[in-house]
Amino acid sequence: MASSNKDPCKKEMTYPAKCVYVSNPYLETMNEDILYHFDLGTKTHDFRAMFGDVKFVCVGGSASRMKAFSQYMNELLGLGRATDDIPNICAHTDRYSMYKVGPVLAVSHGMGIPSISIMLHELIKLLCHAKCTDVVAFRIGTSGGIGLQPGTVVITKVSVDASFNACFEQNTLGMIVTYPTVLNECLAQELLKCNKEIDQFNAIIGTTLCTSDFYEGQARLDGAFCNYTYEDKMNYLHCAYEAGVRNIEMESSVFAAMCNRSGLPGAVVCVTLLDRLQGDQIGSSHEVLEEYQERPQKLVGCYIKKTFCKK
Amino acid sequence: MASSNKDPCKKEMTYPAKCVYVSNPYLETMNEDILYHFDLGTKTHDFRAMFGDVKFVCVGGSASRMKAFSQYMNELLGLGRATDDIPNICAHTDRYSMYKVGPVLAVSHGMGIPSISIMLHELIKLLCHAKCTDVVAFRIGTSGGIGLQPGTVVITKVSVDASFNACFEQNTLGMIVTYPTVLNECLAQELLKCNKEIDQFNAIIGTTLCTSDFYEGQARLDGAFCNYTYEDKMNYLHCAYEAGVRNIEMESSVFAAMCNRSGLPGAVVCVTLLDRLQGDQIGSSHEVLEEYQERPQKLVGCYIKKTFCKK
Repeated sequence: MASSNKDPCKKEMTYPAKCVYVSNPYLETMNEDILYHFDLGTKTHDFRAMFGDVKFVCVGGSASRMKAFSQYMNELLGLGRATDDIPNICAHTDRYSMYKVGPVLAVSHGMGIPSISIMLHELIKLLCHAKCTDVVAFRIGTSGGIGLQPGTVVITKVSVDASFNACFEQNTLGMIVTYPTVLNECLAQELLKCNKEIDQFNAIIGTTLCTSDFYEGQARLDGAFCNYTYEDKMNYLHCAYEAGVRNIEMESSVFAAMCNRSGLPGAVVCVTLLDRLQGDQIGSSHEVLEEYQERPQKLVGCYIKKTFCKK
Repeated sequence: MASSNKDPCKKEMTYPAKCVYVSNPYLETMNEDILYHFDLGTKTHDFRAMFGDVKFVCVGGSASRMKAFSQYMNELLGLGRATDDIPNICAHTDRYSMYKVGPVLAVSHGMGIPSISIMLHELIKLLCHAKCTDVVAFRIGTSGGIGLQPGTVVITKVSVDASFNACFEQNTLGMIVTYPTVLNECLAQELLKCNKEIDQFNAIIGTTLCTSDFYEGQARLDGAFCNYTYEDKMNYLHCAYEAGVRNIEMESSVFAAMCNRSGLPGAVVCVTLLDRLQGDQIGSSHEVLEEYQERPQKLVGCYIKKTFCKK
């Protein structure tokens, strides 16, 4: 079912002339494709002109964070200033926000697997319509850590579900289909190298637990409902740690699955806002959380700059 | 597991002095409760003063739609004008938006079960901290119809999963817990009565299919991936119709489950933007879609006005 990730480390790669990211024979039969949640359509927008040069796709939950990332990349790549107002390409809808600076496309995806899944379907079709090639995909975000100092960045090796299985289960036409969730190893190693060069914070490669709920799904004791005990919670988190889990978030599994299915090399880079072994509430100051959230941006920015400047 | 819905039709109800919406013994032990995704906290905000008079909670996916609804209710309840700028209570975060006009609290929830689930946990805690009583909850939104003229409003009787089971499955600490998803029957009937009074569009009571994906999860042929056929799709949609399903959306199951668990009488009111038996793409003009999306607002608005003016 999954196509293997292409290796961004390989210097000499040959790319097919035709976009290979999509896998849907019906798309070719369509007169027009409306990407409803982006408010973009193939008849109303020139995808090739708008997006043909995209080489790096960077997605994250928050719209304002993705805008800030595009501004950061604008300055980092020498294309403008970090204070430039980058327009939101999807300004006519409030479902997602999209910003483009040079070869970098930054898109927000909201929270949870279904929300990022809709966005990735439309994003992968966008890359196809724009005839993009050699694209690398990143998810930057926040997470809860397990046994890590808050502020540590986790580069995901593999995303696991609530039972710690390395797969993403999707219900299609009433049947469960399973997709692998291993992320591109070489890309993860390259990002770790970037962290050594930046040398400002800790980053590790680890397993990421992807859940469908923030409260009971992550064994929190501070939701509206809780019918388990502190001991149950700690036992679950310790089991997760034993299984290699170092952080918990809510989108990595379908991101990994769809990267594998599309052939996009992908990485998930999330900062930990708290250590879940110590508590449940995110109580750090806005300033501290703000600085934490810049860390995945810096790592991915460093990788993009190195790769972009080589070309 | 579920507490039974209170009946909003009963004229003579007695309410307990203590908030009963939450069910979590750990909340009482907390010195402070930070509702992280609302950017509100019990030490920094006076919940009782801010939200104590809330009687109607209305949630929907889009932030701009919820602002428009609050403006509409502002005028409908004679509290101000529809052009008044209602401030976003959660302006310091872009996760959710929240607007309050009189007894009505309107909150956006993004797309998909996990996104609305986070919001509902924090909203139910908010109602508890504010010591709200006699609250009724509504989800207003958009959906794909099955065998209905586009623009028809479906008031959900029960939400079913992709296998047409009337339950919501949640993974808690690695174990599946199942919650019922039947919505308040009396409230649905009251909303249908409102529609007869408004007499501007069609509304029915029906079963709603709640999926975790918009493309493959809803048997669409226009996603980035599709490894089934047109016949498979039509067969699935016909099976859904036979099971009573009249529309498909992505949040109703956990909304119903959490209404049942909290004891909030709840209704899901979604307009259908297209008939899925006729196609997959939402290609109607912005103007038409805009008018469709006002229909659930009008129905719920009518119910709230009638109830509010009685008090």
